[in-house]
Amino acid sequence: MAQNGEIIAMPVPDGAAIEICEVGPRDGFQIEKAIIPTDRKIAIVNELIDAGLKKIQVTSFVSPRAVPQLADAAEVLAGVEKKPGVVLSALVPNAKGAERAAKTQVDIMGLFCSASEAHSLKNVNASIEATLARFPPVVEIAKAAGKRVQGGVATVFGCPFEGEVPPEAVVRIARFYRDLGIVDLNLGDTTGMATPATVKAVLAALRQAVPEMAVTLHFHNTRGVGLANVMVGLSEGITRYDSSIGGLGGCPFAAGATGNICTEDLVYLLQESGYRTGVDLDRLIGVARLTQDVIGRELPGQVMKAGPRLTRHGLDDVSTAAG
Amino acid sequence: MAQNGEIIAMPVPDGAAIEICEVGPRDGFQIEKAIIPTDRKIAIVNELIDAGLKKIQVTSFVSPRAVPQLADAAEVLAGVEKKPGVVLSALVPNAKGAERAAKTQVDIMGLFCSASEAHSLKNVNASIEATLARFPPVVEIAKAAGKRVQGGVATVFGCPFEGEVPPEAVVRIARFYRDLGIVDLNLGDTTGMATPATVKAVLAALRQAVPEMAVTLHFHNTRGVGLANVMVGLSEGITRYDSSIGGLGGCPFAAGATGNICTEDLVYLLQESGYRTGVDLDRLIGVARLTQDVIGRELPGQVMKAGPRLTRHGLDDVSTAAG
Repeated sequence: MAQNGEIIAMPVPDGAAIEICEVGPRDGFQIEKAIIPTDRKIAIVNELIDAGLKKIQVTSFVSPRAVPQLADAAEVLAGVEKKPGVVLSALVPNAKGAERAAKTQVDIMGLFCSASEAHSLKNVNASIEATLARFPPVVEIAKAAGKRVQGGVATVFGCPFEGEVPPEAVVRIARFYRDLGIVDLNLGDTTGMATPATVKAVLAALRQAVPEMAVTLHFHNTRGVGLANVMVGLSEGITRYDSSIGGLGGCPFAAGATGNICTEDLVYLLQESGYRTGVDLDRLIGVARLTQDVIGRELPGQVMKAGPRLTRHGLDDVSTAAG
Repeated sequence: MAQNGEIIAMPVPDGAAIEICEVGPRDGFQIEKAIIPTDRKIAIVNELIDAGLKKIQVTSFVSPRAVPQLADAAEVLAGVEKKPGVVLSALVPNAKGAERAAKTQVDIMGLFCSASEAHSLKNVNASIEATLARFPPVVEIAKAAGKRVQGGVATVFGCPFEGEVPPEAVVRIARFYRDLGIVDLNLGDTTGMATPATVKAVLAALRQAVPEMAVTLHFHNTRGVGLANVMVGLSEGITRYDSSIGGLGGCPFAAGATGNICTEDLVYLLQESGYRTGVDLDRLIGVARLTQDVIGRELPGQVMKAGPRLTRHGLDDVSTAAG
């Protein structure tokens, strides 16, 4: 287990606690074209908390002009009923966003920087160097407001423009975060290019360079292998994963492709594999169905369609002659 | 590796060959309500062979009354252009089906029996004992015709009527097959109830009871964890997997749930993890798209939507401000 922030390479033992951060309200909602009413966003976050999720990335303090869907960041945070032990996070791209976030009940400000120069220019219209230069003031604002900071890296496992991203590019950004005193490191599989081999390679490089950092794996299921990558993460000792309710989200480069790995499918996999998540799967499935209703289209989550593993069917249910 | 038919528990080494059996033309087509024209079925099978697949379950010699979609079993097999090294299989429920299959170019007759009594009664209207009693004549017919036989077990990892299926129930059927001289054992996750824990438990029981048998894992992705289960299979030394093109198929107990694990997503995972499959992924994606056109609805395969991992995008492609 990644105790005390250490990246280790021993398999996570059965019965260990896994920390899931729900990112659907940020990573999922942000790609929706139709504006979701603020009160529906708040209702979903509160239902997620009621289902037992302890960490939720609620929104992003990006420019409302760039992402109109998240213009209500402060209002959504104000409506969240934060129970004891629950931690809320929000992305914060710069000092301006940090000033807005500092006034809310958010606990963690999330920084993010692409490991690919081309993606950085395209995504935030700034080079990697220029992006990193914005972060020291954010850390100061967070400290003054009593907030924690997580350092995020995007396109960790590949870039849709540049192709392979060398682990050294990820290490460079991780070191920058560490030197700012940041311990939490989030590895973003922004367009779903992570594979077992790339996950192992990046973790090995980070273990060497910044063993004192605690890694969260943020996988997308764009190519169907998101939960297979979680299996690799578990075998490498990683206990922190991001996911989105119902599998909300998508990929700007692939019409019809799915987004983040799905929270209820992840919880199902983990619980059935002997790990503790603290989540009530039945309630979580209810939240996935609510989210699907709010979004108004079918979401990719599977467990919400099939039900938990031991869902019993009557002998009168449909069947086919099949092996 | 499962060499010489042995079930072993060492992880499959990088670079090892993995045998994929494409089952879409049987397990996928059988649940389609609209009859697919025989020549379209043949075209898909031939394209699969051209893409490099070496083993294909083409059809099932079940009663045409029970499964009208597969009434053209002999015609489809007659149209397949079997290249050197390609092996064709078909399910055969009884002596009558075996007589029909014996006259075709099929190489393997696949038997199947549920490990759950309730599922057996529901699926083939016969108890486990009555089902097994049909098999010795099938083996005789196969032998006389120079065909191999694979022994399949359905509902290995759970039953939609009975719930948990004890590994001993699977072992019982495996022993029956072994005593008939059958070496190939197919473990069917009929309604997508397999999990890392159940896969390990069943393999451990079989390793103890019938170590001389060669196991094929047949997973469904009904609850989203099919490829995670493949990762477990690989870590347990299993080198043979069934999958369906485009993720064709479904689950009679869950509207909207997906079917078998998807062949092109499996090939992508395996190739990116350093295993050899002998398959041309780009061509396979083409077959998945062709299959989707023939079926006339969106299939769950992800790689056919997103493209292979290093698909490059121009800087003018859509993007969003995202971490």
